[in-house]
Amino acid sequence: MAKTKGPRRPKAETPKGFRDYFGTEVTVRKAMLDKIAGVYHRYGFDALETSAVETVEALGKFLPDVDRPNEGVFAWEEDADWLALRYDLTAPLARVAAQYRNDLPTPYLRYAMGPVWRNEKPGPGRFRQFYQCDADTVGAASVAADAEICAMLSDALEAVGIERGDYVIRVNNRKVLNGVMEVAGILDPADPEKFASERGIVLRAIDKLDRLGVEGVCALLGEGRKDESGDFTKGAGLASAQAEVVLRYVLAKERILKRLSDEFLARTDEAFTDYETQRKLLGIERGMGKASGEKHTTETALLLSNRTLAYLREIVGASETGLDGVSELGEISALLAAQGYGPDRIIIDPSVVRGLGYYTGPVYEAELTFEITDEKGRPRQFGSVAGGGRYDDLVKRFTGQSVPATGVSIGVDRLLAALAAKGRLDTTAQGPVVVTVMDRDRMSDYMGMVADLRAAGIRAEMYLGNPKNFGNQLKYADKRGSPIAIIQGGDEAAKGVVQIKDLILGAKIAQQATVEEWKSQPAQVEVSVENMVQAVREILDRHT
Amino acid sequence: MAKTKGPRRPKAETPKGFRDYFGTEVTVRKAMLDKIAGVYHRYGFDALETSAVETVEALGKFLPDVDRPNEGVFAWEEDADWLALRYDLTAPLARVAAQYRNDLPTPYLRYAMGPVWRNEKPGPGRFRQFYQCDADTVGAASVAADAEICAMLSDALEAVGIERGDYVIRVNNRKVLNGVMEVAGILDPADPEKFASERGIVLRAIDKLDRLGVEGVCALLGEGRKDESGDFTKGAGLASAQAEVVLRYVLAKERILKRLSDEFLARTDEAFTDYETQRKLLGIERGMGKASGEKHTTETALLLSNRTLAYLREIVGASETGLDGVSELGEISALLAAQGYGPDRIIIDPSVVRGLGYYTGPVYEAELTFEITDEKGRPRQFGSVAGGGRYDDLVKRFTGQSVPATGVSIGVDRLLAALAAKGRLDTTAQGPVVVTVMDRDRMSDYMGMVADLRAAGIRAEMYLGNPKNFGNQLKYADKRGSPIAIIQGGDEAAKGVVQIKDLILGAKIAQQATVEEWKSQPAQVEVSVENMVQAVREILDRHT
Repeated sequence: MAKTKGPRRPKAETPKGFRDYFGTEVTVRKAMLDKIAGVYHRYGFDALETSAVETVEALGKFLPDVDRPNEGVFAWEEDADWLALRYDLTAPLARVAAQYRNDLPTPYLRYAMGPVWRNEKPGPGRFRQFYQCDADTVGAASVAADAEICAMLSDALEAVGIERGDYVIRVNNRKVLNGVMEVAGILDPADPEKFASERGIVLRAIDKLDRLGVEGVCALLGEGRKDESGDFTKGAGLASAQAEVVLRYVLAKERILKRLSDEFLARTDEAFTDYETQRKLLGIERGMGKASGEKHTTETALLLSNRTLAYLREIVGASETGLDGVSELGEISALLAAQGYGPDRIIIDPSVVRGLGYYTGPVYEAELTFEITDEKGRPRQFGSVAGGGRYDDLVKRFTGQSVPATGVSIGVDRLLAALAAKGRLDTTAQGPVVVTVMDRDRMSDYMGMVADLRAAGIRAEMYLGNPKNFGNQLKYADKRGSPIAIIQGGDEAAKGVVQIKDLILGAKIAQQATVEEWKSQPAQVEVSVENMVQAVREILDRHT
Repeated sequence: MAKTKGPRRPKAETPKGFRDYFGTEVTVRKAMLDKIAGVYHRYGFDALETSAVETVEALGKFLPDVDRPNEGVFAWEEDADWLALRYDLTAPLARVAAQYRNDLPTPYLRYAMGPVWRNEKPGPGRFRQFYQCDADTVGAASVAADAEICAMLSDALEAVGIERGDYVIRVNNRKVLNGVMEVAGILDPADPEKFASERGIVLRAIDKLDRLGVEGVCALLGEGRKDESGDFTKGAGLASAQAEVVLRYVLAKERILKRLSDEFLARTDEAFTDYETQRKLLGIERGMGKASGEKHTTETALLLSNRTLAYLREIVGASETGLDGVSELGEISALLAAQGYGPDRIIIDPSVVRGLGYYTGPVYEAELTFEITDEKGRPRQFGSVAGGGRYDDLVKRFTGQSVPATGVSIGVDRLLAALAAKGRLDTTAQGPVVVTVMDRDRMSDYMGMVADLRAAGIRAEMYLGNPKNFGNQLKYADKRGSPIAIIQGGDEAAKGVVQIKDLILGAKIAQQATVEEWKSQPAQVEVSVENMVQAVREILDRHT
């Protein structure tokens, strides 16, 4: 007989690229956001919450990383308007700064946290809805605003449990890069649009130094590069003198370290060429902060930053923009040093490029320096968890007036993943005390017990499922991670007592071998109803 | 000369029906959500955060209030799927309960809070994105789960600052209503679809008792009703005997009170016909809770609920569904009384109808009983701030299996409005201490001061705008609601001191008349740089 088909049922699935968060996944992230908000608040930033939906017109096309394919927003037409879900928290801020420009204080310091949506191809660990946690200063031209954000970022990372030494905030300046471009003859201050495509190729080449090495970058600065698969990438076509200018920039970090190394060589027999050795020689040990030697840190910061600045000043030569950028970096360095933020936390690093879509001045990036084990079991650096910079033209889209702004975005989900990988995230859920139901007609009594426990601030519930099978009640308590089950059958009720079952201890005992231990550690105690709350409290305290 | 037009600029506006939330609007709501989450957690509920986007298929059409026009969701097509923003937190829960049915504990107690979106015509105070704050128990058939939610709702309201006596949670049961329909001959248990349109008209009529009065409801139960504008609304066409059955239900509350009144009349000379008098006579004074007389509250609860139940039992007569509903209400009453939740907090009230789209058993509603002043200056009851009930068929859509579920949704924005109207919401922002910039080349010094203040946990910032006009710096501090400004010019720096300007005291003094008072209350003090943090702390403490 043919099976009769019912109506088609809807699929119980999240849309592709979206996911659900359960229990501690929610509360642990919330706790992190709260801690970051606390730091942002202490720095004087005010909360702003814009709606998830904006007009497409207001959002514009300002995603920092404009080269990514499939990039886009979720958009739809509504009453002749195109609406879209925000793809970041900066575009809505620009709209707010323009819309309320006569009412907001100047400068306007705001923080925002919440989900953003990207209509991109999802991948492992890459979702179409994720959290951002931003702080921006709108209307402050001074690079003191940038320095403030870097210091705040450092405090925020430490507040959520990233230890000093496990992260570094790297600061660069877009103007320095522009200065180098001028010197290399691919940026004409009088005609900024000229050579735009050459500059694009150069920027992408610089950003790929880690992956392609110096040779690969050189090829891309010149005629082009053929990769292993035989694919040819067209180069910027620079003459060798031009390429040399860019290379001096690309190799800045290495050469600065070489110079410092030579200098130290004259004093010691130790050479250092990598960051770790440099840190060691300069006395910047892991975890060394303000408390353990502020003066030294400040001195070291100044030494390092002075050498870097000197080198950059050399290579930008006569470019006004470039020199301006170097002096801004110097100012940021000095302001940070004055607050005790040394190179154990924040360093000037010319290798920071970042998505260059809209940045106009200082750019900064927070990187975790510890190693984690990737999905294939290989150790790797965790990498960037936050970044930002100065963007002076976002508000101009609306008002025609340039408004200086700078800000940072913390990738909360990545930060959570990092803390989880380091085992520094407490995701153990404290389940409720479960009052079991032995007699269905005495539910009022059980509810009274639950009420007493709650009144004492203890998380508790009565088992609300079908009470017939007592084993199911204990299985439920187990699944909830309950520390304790309360049991009161007819006999206990007549005697005015309850059984308190310590489920954490019970689980431990169950894994142990000897009968003696089992006997010596009673996982179940009988107490009078009056003493129940006190007894539960004692067991809970014992387990925390 | 004709003005040359630039490119058209985007409008800096939120889409119609959306809004931005600033500063304390964000933090005060957050604090409220945190408090409610605390109560939900204590009751054993676990957090769940689903994404804002669902497939239209999974969302279905389950908005509780199906009669509202223009109702809808924001939806768009994406890769051949239709996606939409969630319109509530219950539909995603049903999807989750189906999707993870093999992994979740049974029963599953979850809370969720976040924005939901409705594609409806916006109005004053009515936005297309707003917060919901839900708790639901999935998989518990026992009405103990409903009782738990009512008790929890009561605790949540008190946790956010609604005092006992200022709210009441009214509980009814959809089954009682169905029993009345059966008795009235407009619900046939053997053919539930029959008379659906008559029942719809009857339900809408019952829900309008407050507005139309008994006569209006009678007209709608019969042939129909012509309103003041002359518009005719078709009635349910009930015969007078049928209508009488419904009316007995509609007038339940009034008649129960009349009976109690007669009974009391036999003992005292006071009559009572309204809720306030009833409360007074029954000794349920405003604010009287567990502490002031638990026994009395429990007794009163039982008296009231017994009378109500007896009355309802009479009118549902032989209807099995109806009797079942009455006995469920009795069970809920008893369970609540056992926990000390008397009629000063939760009452059985047959007048609760609620959107009846999907409710199948107990329904509950929290109403604020105090008066506020509306936009036209008239006093009015604030009304409903939360509601919910039992819905046993939501998960069935996905799995084919009926899963019992019950839950509540708190309208956080309405609750905030209520607290604001009562003046119980502290929305004063504590602005940052502002360190002003007197000498542009001593920014490092100012930053150092800011760092010291922050290290002491004090909210502080350096003025980051253009420091040229000092008046602007003080205006900024004023706009930020800053309690204190720190000033250090060249002379002060040479002496190693700072000026601490108490802006709160300064504002007070500025409003006072006499020169003596001005002199006796120095709003500005000079302290050494070392003592700055301590002096700031003392002023802040003085103001809180």
